[in-house]
Parts: sequence; C-alpha cells; structure tokens
Amino acid sequence: MVQGSSSAEHGGPPPGARAQLLDTASAIMREGDVIDISLSELSLRSGLNSALVKYYFGNKAGLLKALLDRDWQAIVTSVDALLAKDGWSPEAKLRRHLWKVVDTFYEVPYLNRLTMRMVRESDDTEARRIADCYLSPIYRAYEELIGDGVRAGVFREIDPQLFYFTVTGAVDRFFSARLVLKHCFDQDTLTEELRDRYREHTIDIIMAGILAR
Amino acid sequence: MVQGSSSAEHGGPPPGARAQLLDTASAIMREGDVIDISLSELSLRSGLNSALVKYYFGNKAGLLKALLDRDWQAIVTSVDALLAKDGWSPEAKLRRHLWKVVDTFYEVPYLNRLTMRMVRESDDTEARRIADCYLSPIYRAYEELIGDGVRAGVFREIDPQLFYFTVTGAVDRFFSARLVLKHCFDQDTLTEELRDRYREHTIDIIMAGILAR
Repeated sequence: MVQGSSSAEHGGPPPGARAQLLDTASAIMREGDVIDISLSELSLRSGLNSALVKYYFGNKAGLLKALLDRDWQAIVTSVDALLAKDGWSPEAKLRRHLWKVVDTFYEVPYLNRLTMRMVRESDDTEARRIADCYLSPIYRAYEELIGDGVRAGVFREIDPQLFYFTVTGAVDRFFSARLVLKHCFDQDTLTEELRDRYREHTIDIIMAGILAR
Repeated sequence: MVQGSSSAEHGGPPPGARAQLLDTASAIMREGDVIDISLSELSLRSGLNSALVKYYFGNKAGLLKALLDRDWQAIVTSVDALLAKDGWSPEAKLRRHLWKVVDTFYEVPYLNRLTMRMVRESDDTEARRIADCYLSPIYRAYEELIGDGVRAGVFREIDPQLFYFTVTGAVDRFFSARLVLKHCFDQDTLTEELRDRYREHTIDIIMAGILAR
C-alpha cells in the first residue's frame, strides 16, 4: 500500500522518498505561489505513490508540518553557525545574514505565509512549538547581533525586535509579490538577476539605516 | 427583501447601510486577523439584514471587492495629495508618507493579504484593474518622490521599484504579524503604543537608509 510502483518488488518505499516528497511539495508551492498542494499533483510530479504521504506524514497537514520543520531547521542552523563565527565583526555578520535571508526567501518564498497559516490553524501547543523552535531563536539571534553592534559603537541604537520585522518584512514581501510583479511590472517570474538586484538594494539600505555615522 | 428591520416601514435600506456594511467587514477582518467574513457574523455585528449584501454588492465577493476599492481609493487619494503639496521637500514628503503608511496598515492590516487574495482569485481583467488603479499609482508616486530627492541630492541613488517593496514589506509585515507577537512576545494585540514605537523605528531606519550623507 505504501509502495511506489518502481519499488513494489522490494516491499518498502524507495530510498529518499520522504525527502523527495518534501522537495516536490516545496517546488509546487514555490512555482505556483501557493501554500497548499494537491496530493494528486504531488504524486504526479514526484513519481511517488500518494500513499507514501500517509506512510511518512499521516496526512497532508503532517506533510506541511514536516516541510515547515525542514525549512526552518535549515534557517536556525545557519543563523546559529553565523553568530558563532569567531573573528567576524557585527557588521560583517549582519551583511552576511542579510545576504542569506534573501537567498532563503528566494528558495522558499512561501515560508512566511505557510508559517502564519500553520500557526493560525494549530492549537496553542503547536503554535507555541513553532514560535519556540523557529521564530524565537531568530529573534534572539537579532537581539544578540544588534546588541553586540550597538555596544561596539558600530550600530546605532536600534530595537532588535522591531528590526526583525523590518528585515523579514522587506525581504519576504518582495519574494512573495510575484503577482505584483506580474500585473504591475509585466515581469513574470522571480529571476536570479532580480534576486541579486534586490539583495544589493536590501543590504545597501538596511546597512545605511543601521550603521553609526 | 432588502430591508433592515428598523427601516421596513420606509420601503428602502437604512441610510448609510452600505458604508456600515463595509465598516463592519473591515472591523471583523482587522480584529480577527482574517481576510474572509461570514455573512451571518456581518449581519449580527452590523445589525443589518444580510440581504443588503446582495442588494449593494451582489454577493460576498462583491463586498470584498468594494472593501478593497474603499481602502485603496483612500490611500491613492492621500498619496496624490501629498505629492502635490507645494513647498514641501522630498525628505519632508517621504517622512510624512512613512508616517501615513504605518497609520494605514494599523487601520487596515488585512489590506495587503486581501489584495493578493483578490488578484489571485480574479481573472486577468480584474487583476489588471487592481494593479492599474491601486498598485501602479503608488509605485509611480515612489518613482516621482525618490526621483525628486535623488535629483535634489538629498537621497542616495535608490531604485524606487525595490524601495517600494522595502517600505510596504517592512510595514505590512509588522501589522500582519499579530500571531508572531502573540506566540513569540506574549503580546496579544496591536496597540497604539506599539504602532507609535514601530512608526518611529521605521521612519528612523528608512530615512537613515536613504538620505545622502
């Protein structure tokens, strides 16, 4: 029942099937600018039997939760590693962080909307888990990074909580705005060229906004 | 059929009923952090017969479209008036604009999400209308305002298209993030105090980011 057609003879799911389902779900959301998927499209695009969703994730909600976990764990790990770097100035760390944030939202432009949807549709315990595991660690990283820069005199006095909304909002809005691009600017997709331009713009304006003069 | 109970004897809908339905729909979305409404809740909260929705707007989709039009027309009118002000410097106009943007998203925090939903669910003609009537005028205002400031030497060379995403993203994200506030920061609602703090922060960091040194 849980076997893909190609592995029916082995009696188990094909190797890498779980990761492949998540990769495919991510690609569907990214390309379609949506935060939902149909299991039949997932099965068609991944070449995997949709019973595997039940096997690995229980149901579609479980699949969405696993995708949220996958995407956020990568972000938290990356931010933790950046903050732990010895010998980097707060300015260098912030520049590098902004660079990565743009990359991240380019890869998973659905993530903020998906997160808000999951928080909205979850009970209090699960909403708290999402906040504790993913949102709060990022906020605490901002608190540490901005605090270090302010104490070193390289950053102006900026509230890290509010700064967190400034950065994530500015970046997220751009990459979730495919529809605006299409209908206002006759630009159909997010390209690497546009990503690089927006990255340069974002780092430029945010750093100018925070650096002490 | 279209009469509210209080006006049944007059043979027509109560005066101001159309505006009252829109006001109530706006309040429901703002308070609930949602971009949908139930007609029964709308009727209960407004004290108006839900047949009036059919009378004025055809159906719920028509009501949502009318709300979108109401909110956006106010914004476009206000931005046009600001740009037309004689004797104001580009810096003063931008500061005033940022002040107003924060006010707007505080009042109608659902507007960006609602706009994206309407664009997504509309046919090409209606999506184009929304872009042409509401999104493009705001973008063109940015082009004019930033261009004036760059030519006057008070603003650095900033791409107005990208700047538009920076500002609207930073502000929108904050006010649509009630759930983040609740679960990360144990702060249950958007207060005027928080609005004012975020306004000061936003104007501070954006102006520092754009002003020539």
